[in-house]
Amino acid sequence: MHKVLRELKVDLGERSYPIIIGQGLLGSIDLTPWVAGQQVMIVTNDTVGPLYLEKVKRCFPGKVVDVVILPDGEQFKDWQTLNLIFDALLEKRHTRKTTIVALGGGVVGDMAGFAAASYQRGVPFIQVPTTLLSQVDSSVGGKTGVNHPLGKNMVGAFHQPQAVLIDTDTLKTLPPREVSAGLAEVIKYGLIQDEPFLAWLEGAIEKLLGLDADTLGEAIYRSCACKAEVVAQDEKEGGIRAILNLGHTFGHAIETFAGYGNWLHGEAVGTGMMMAADLSVREGLISSDDKARVTALIQRARLPEAAPEAMTDEDFMNLMSVDKKNVDGRLRLVLLKAIGDAFVTEAASSDNIRDTLKAFLPKAE
Amino acid sequence: MHKVLRELKVDLGERSYPIIIGQGLLGSIDLTPWVAGQQVMIVTNDTVGPLYLEKVKRCFPGKVVDVVILPDGEQFKDWQTLNLIFDALLEKRHTRKTTIVALGGGVVGDMAGFAAASYQRGVPFIQVPTTLLSQVDSSVGGKTGVNHPLGKNMVGAFHQPQAVLIDTDTLKTLPPREVSAGLAEVIKYGLIQDEPFLAWLEGAIEKLLGLDADTLGEAIYRSCACKAEVVAQDEKEGGIRAILNLGHTFGHAIETFAGYGNWLHGEAVGTGMMMAADLSVREGLISSDDKARVTALIQRARLPEAAPEAMTDEDFMNLMSVDKKNVDGRLRLVLLKAIGDAFVTEAASSDNIRDTLKAFLPKAE
Repeated sequence: MHKVLRELKVDLGERSYPIIIGQGLLGSIDLTPWVAGQQVMIVTNDTVGPLYLEKVKRCFPGKVVDVVILPDGEQFKDWQTLNLIFDALLEKRHTRKTTIVALGGGVVGDMAGFAAASYQRGVPFIQVPTTLLSQVDSSVGGKTGVNHPLGKNMVGAFHQPQAVLIDTDTLKTLPPREVSAGLAEVIKYGLIQDEPFLAWLEGAIEKLLGLDADTLGEAIYRSCACKAEVVAQDEKEGGIRAILNLGHTFGHAIETFAGYGNWLHGEAVGTGMMMAADLSVREGLISSDDKARVTALIQRARLPEAAPEAMTDEDFMNLMSVDKKNVDGRLRLVLLKAIGDAFVTEAASSDNIRDTLKAFLPKAE
Repeated sequence: MHKVLRELKVDLGERSYPIIIGQGLLGSIDLTPWVAGQQVMIVTNDTVGPLYLEKVKRCFPGKVVDVVILPDGEQFKDWQTLNLIFDALLEKRHTRKTTIVALGGGVVGDMAGFAAASYQRGVPFIQVPTTLLSQVDSSVGGKTGVNHPLGKNMVGAFHQPQAVLIDTDTLKTLPPREVSAGLAEVIKYGLIQDEPFLAWLEGAIEKLLGLDADTLGEAIYRSCACKAEVVAQDEKEGGIRAILNLGHTFGHAIETFAGYGNWLHGEAVGTGMMMAADLSVREGLISSDDKARVTALIQRARLPEAAPEAMTDEDFMNLMSVDKKNVDGRLRLVLLKAIGDAFVTEAASSDNIRDTLKAFLPKAE
């Protein structure tokens, strides 16, 4: 049977919910306590579905369980694919009391979550993230949405799940590139507010890449706890929550330039965090040694170190200025005051930003 | 200049907002107090835009005002048209601090409102309804959304506006058929909870059809007050708010069968309310005289009295059972205990429902 390793709570008043981290949960744990009605719609993709769908169906004894299988990939995080979920819900006549279950990575979670936020103006949902990145980041905090050709996650909603179920066994089937991408977000939590966790990661990175279960469980727990704490303070990103976007403004520009799906989100964030550290040095906020420490850990996590081929600083400027992190036209960035201390600023100088962009262009390597 | 006739408040705590009813408001009143940022995106359609767009632009002195013009009609209340709004917002680089303005009828209001709910996970919006139906119903209460081929308003959000601005002058350009459709919702408020208002309407119906300004102002004010009171009690339709759906379950089936845009929403609701009154008699809840009173007023408002050509009771049953008013498969309806006293029930007998459907089929006329 299953083993619950760790459990924590995202504290949002009447919208609070548990995160359950364990081994062997899928197929074994009973999820019906988080299902109010009789209907369940599992949303998954054609990679994850064949691996875990039958197991997850067994988590809902006595319920009517329907399934919709989406094509796998960030390039399908769009209206057309989202509509497949609505089609399935309406064809199977799901009511306002249905529960949607997101089984897969961040793309499935974001789309199933937005479908849950929007179907009949909102139904409950459960997150069952199966990638490291979604387990430590996107499944927690209620951000849902789809991409638009002109920008990532431009259309969406804040919609909190009823529960998040993390089975570390699912990481055994994850490609190494996706493990690295997930580690980018894990490293992020250390960088933004937990230097001791970053130091722990510096000792644990090889074990994590080797998928050591206990080490992964600990890294996931500490990451979720960090995210839960930030989200509880600022559910709708009016302020402090924005620090979770360290590396994301640069990263989103990279993802958009490369075309969705060509760079993994975590890969772009990894490069973006190196860029944020670089700019933090130029702004006189951290030392070159601090930057070297950041760069070294991201490199050890096997993440890319420069922007995609043919990308220019103009591309960056154009793509960053439509990103949602900008308010009233100013470039709003998350920078580091120290390792473990990030903050949001609109004060970075244009010259320094431009120099950082140039330093990370592929021709500069 | 303009004249404010009446003002009321929708009381929803921190999401409270004013409804301002007046003459000559467009082009004259300053709406910038409800605009937090520097950007405004007016969403309108190709019928209303040419009439009022330039006037509404003048309501935002000192702001950057962009415009998106949608094709007019319920048949365009879909994903594809919604995306025109997102395209415009992104092409013009609107940030999370933009304010969306809905200028038009219920379709524009529902779509602009859903765009506001979803753009960058939520931005503020202002309702400027220009049809009687949207002034008394859809612009108040925060329901937003689009249709799906399998059901009306199946995808949407609850998103409250910053303010609702009702200029009765806009009704001068409204086709008579749309005036009647709006009166269906006005009559509804009398039927569900305000018998004195219904009695007043019985004396005022010809003046309303003749667009007498003072009479319209009073009818709009009392309708909005009724809706605001119900919405304040139950923002997300967990209970009492459902009484606002009197006639809507039958009506939605009619609209879906006829094809969106062929019947006006208010027309379908008018017939649907006659059906609800008919079923209420069969269920022993009201007298035949009560039903005759309901029918007479709806007829005097020049609304249709039977389902569309070729529609069968089976069509009704199939289309009603995907409607969102049904929970866990039971047919949930709003019926009348008395004129001015509606309630939600799942207890109506199948035989009586079937008899009511048959009584309103076109061949039965």
